[in-house]
Amino acid sequence: MKYYRDLAPPPRTIMTPGPVEVDPRVLRAMSYPILGQFDPEFTALMNETMDMLRSVFMTDNKWAYPVDGTSRSGIEAVLVSLIEPGDRVLVPIYGRFGHLLVEISKRCGAEVVTLEKEWGSVFAPEEIVAAIRKFRPKLVAVVHGETSTGRLQPLEGISEACREADALLVVDAVATIGGVKVAADEWGIDAVIGGTQKCLSVPAGLAPITYNSRAEAKLLKRKRIERGLLMGDEAQDPAFRPIQSNYLDLSQLQDYWSPARLNHHTEATTMLYALREGLRLVLEEGLEERFARHRLQERALVAGIEAMGLGLYGDPASKMPVVTCIEIPDGIDGEAVRSMLLGDFGIEIASSFGPLKGRIWRIGTMGYSCSKRNVLLTLGALEAVLLRHGCKLEAGAAVQAAMDVYKMG
Amino acid sequence: MKYYRDLAPPPRTIMTPGPVEVDPRVLRAMSYPILGQFDPEFTALMNETMDMLRSVFMTDNKWAYPVDGTSRSGIEAVLVSLIEPGDRVLVPIYGRFGHLLVEISKRCGAEVVTLEKEWGSVFAPEEIVAAIRKFRPKLVAVVHGETSTGRLQPLEGISEACREADALLVVDAVATIGGVKVAADEWGIDAVIGGTQKCLSVPAGLAPITYNSRAEAKLLKRKRIERGLLMGDEAQDPAFRPIQSNYLDLSQLQDYWSPARLNHHTEATTMLYALREGLRLVLEEGLEERFARHRLQERALVAGIEAMGLGLYGDPASKMPVVTCIEIPDGIDGEAVRSMLLGDFGIEIASSFGPLKGRIWRIGTMGYSCSKRNVLLTLGALEAVLLRHGCKLEAGAAVQAAMDVYKMG
Repeated sequence: MKYYRDLAPPPRTIMTPGPVEVDPRVLRAMSYPILGQFDPEFTALMNETMDMLRSVFMTDNKWAYPVDGTSRSGIEAVLVSLIEPGDRVLVPIYGRFGHLLVEISKRCGAEVVTLEKEWGSVFAPEEIVAAIRKFRPKLVAVVHGETSTGRLQPLEGISEACREADALLVVDAVATIGGVKVAADEWGIDAVIGGTQKCLSVPAGLAPITYNSRAEAKLLKRKRIERGLLMGDEAQDPAFRPIQSNYLDLSQLQDYWSPARLNHHTEATTMLYALREGLRLVLEEGLEERFARHRLQERALVAGIEAMGLGLYGDPASKMPVVTCIEIPDGIDGEAVRSMLLGDFGIEIASSFGPLKGRIWRIGTMGYSCSKRNVLLTLGALEAVLLRHGCKLEAGAAVQAAMDVYKMG
Repeated sequence: MKYYRDLAPPPRTIMTPGPVEVDPRVLRAMSYPILGQFDPEFTALMNETMDMLRSVFMTDNKWAYPVDGTSRSGIEAVLVSLIEPGDRVLVPIYGRFGHLLVEISKRCGAEVVTLEKEWGSVFAPEEIVAAIRKFRPKLVAVVHGETSTGRLQPLEGISEACREADALLVVDAVATIGGVKVAADEWGIDAVIGGTQKCLSVPAGLAPITYNSRAEAKLLKRKRIERGLLMGDEAQDPAFRPIQSNYLDLSQLQDYWSPARLNHHTEATTMLYALREGLRLVLEEGLEERFARHRLQERALVAGIEAMGLGLYGDPASKMPVVTCIEIPDGIDGEAVRSMLLGDFGIEIASSFGPLKGRIWRIGTMGYSCSKRNVLLTLGALEAVLLRHGCKLEAGAAVQAAMDVYKMG
């Protein structure tokens, strides 16, 4: 028999926009024996997780639970459940993940209308509002934090236009939840998708979502009609098609998460332990305190990057606090730098996508990875590697600049 | 702030048809720090996992990898990727999970033809072959081990008819993989879906699949056409619709698992550690040895159940070795028995679905839960609880009968 060695992942400082380092308390939680999915001890943990998710999404919504898959399973679950074939969907695009919302919406049969913004900037909310009034979509899907460009889209002031147009507002907050304010109720968002492997510091594998009664009303309407269709009653509106997915059908998922516990999938027990522990950590730290920590580490990182004489990519006014995009200096091979950082220092930073490929590095300061230690180690190592690659830098300046930020607080 | 207690799952002996107890080596693997998804140390683990999955599925297929979701995400990924709207799909149904295959296929737009068998028995392969010749479906989807009724469907001899009809043969082996022989190549199966939380003793959260070049050819054909459609080139066959899902699109998933590593989702790092360790355990034990262990524990359990004077449900000729269905004696409240087993003994056995609700208990002997210790503890506890509920039993007989089986080997 072929031999496969015992698992022994090497130590890593993970400074990408996700997945990031997992809090050791979360890792410990994952090593506990599992419980059956209908064991009352387990369903109590499921209920606590829903409760904590409401706090983290800043909502009183009845529904807040994870979809069992990685973040994009949550995005697709929301879109496939809320978009009926033929529905007009508006997607403002300002980076790669906006294109993903378009692709998923098209696969759901939507007629997609897009707005496009040059990468590196975001929309003024009024631009989105004007488009809603013009196109009158049934659903507006927008990314909150776009990791591909490191931009944060302001969302306040959009929901009123959505309600006027009777459109649902869906927000991809995969990269921001737990690190940057995401206020579902205050901002009038109808459905939000969060990610586990970024600012929550839980491994990828679950996608926490929340949605309100406006979104639920659409689910329940579809469910009523499709029950007839699936039973063979074709006397319904022929334009109607049932929710295309069983696995990602929110109307079935909410029955599973309700006290009725209607059997659907087998909840990913260990991942649920992990998410619950990650949420406990967020609430113990406090949302405001956590957002402040993310902003402080960002300031220290940026001070260090600027002290090295490196340029930041994109419009500073819309910079995402948990992702910093750095222009690769002329004449430097970005991949060689990343490779030396990983191989010699065990530090991972990210490359980039599409038009930015080879032009920027992306450094995440998210969750457990968002610490003074990690920022200082990363700046020191990056400086050393850049010196090794012949960059003209003032040695030591980056770390000193970051330490000054910490001293000032 | 509301207080949520530290995680402390109570000890459990889990004797259901899944999820079952997780091997402690798998739990330990899950407590290791994560790696980035494109870290070469991590992609090496992904490749090893693919390699081990080929051994466990008994195949030389190029493609064998997990879908990031629970078992039914794997089923839906295979069906949504291989069924084109309007395709005729044949589903032989002999329990609850056959109905799930029907529901998912309908949501994929299939014209579904079903064969139905009374619960408690299975099809003769010739019956399925005759239906394939009659209906000439594009795809045949069948459950290998039906946990709802505890039956095992023989699959040999079906694939020839599928090839004659140019149909793909898809098998749901969620409940059998790693506990009962599943020979993808020998049986000519085009796509197989396995489960982690049953005979592999890994938590729910990934769905290992494999498929051959016949299945891949259909994926690649669809991908070529849909690339045009998604780009807005409507000059294609108007009947064609792209794969409805992004998340579950196997043509994208295989690009992610290929050396090209085209970005799709963020692999569920910790779950991958768990699956890899679970597969290592299977291969270290040996497939044949593992199947033999499952058969031995089944024999001991059945001997004990019969010594208690309890009846087994269903046709003995098609009994699934890893699930034993027991008729609840007249006058006994099945749920009260389960509740006392769980509350007083920390042992979980399963209830049942649909027409069998309240009529049978189901005991799983799967993976790490499939041990002499667990079988003896379960028999002893069940006997004690039944005595408490007024059953007339010969005290001590069940455990003695099982011990006799172990003694004889």
